[in-house]
Amino acid sequence: MKIVKTPPAPYYAVIFTALLGDNLDGYEETATRIMELAKGHDGFYGMEEIGDKWEINISYWRDVESMMEWRKHSEHVVAQETGKKQWYECYKMRIAKVERDYDFYK
Amino acid sequence: MKIVKTPPAPYYAVIFTALLGDNLDGYEETATRIMELAKGHDGFYGMEEIGDKWEINISYWRDVESMMEWRKHSEHVVAQETGKKQWYECYKMRIAKVERDYDFYK
Repeated sequence: MKIVKTPPAPYYAVIFTALLGDNLDGYEETATRIMELAKGHDGFYGMEEIGDKWEINISYWRDVESMMEWRKHSEHVVAQETGKKQWYECYKMRIAKVERDYDFYK
Repeated sequence: MKIVKTPPAPYYAVIFTALLGDNLDGYEETATRIMELAKGHDGFYGMEEIGDKWEINISYWRDVESMMEWRKHSEHVVAQETGKKQWYECYKMRIAKVERDYDFYK
């Protein structure tokens, strides 16, 4: 993982916390593909993700508009639907406006 | 882990993404103690956390005031200082206002 380098606040974060189920057919391939697509999407700053069975995934965006455009992207819509039908037991998604941030490096 | 049950938005999230170093003396004990203290703090809704070497930790709060009070709590201040001196290689902390959220359960 890497800490995403974001420009000065404000910007947006999509906080996605999820529990994966047992049928993960196609999950890794789709996650890789979706990440590639997101990288090419206007307003996408990057993603921080950790997890295995439980997963936390935070993506950072320039503004509400770019985030909403991404939600409607056709391949992403299919992935979201497959996620509900097949991969996820449960999840919570939170749309948050980052107002301030602090860095610490040794 | 568990998905934190938060009341309807708006509320606040502190997104903490960190890389731990090699000297973790006292880290687990302090993390447990700090979590206990946070649970008793006015305005604290809960915490989602995953990680090992890399860690993502998201705590949820009622408002800016309760979050800021917590930052100043004396034991928490000591833990933050020890974190910088000893445990963390680097981290980024983001203060974000959750504007909307969505749940999915099977």
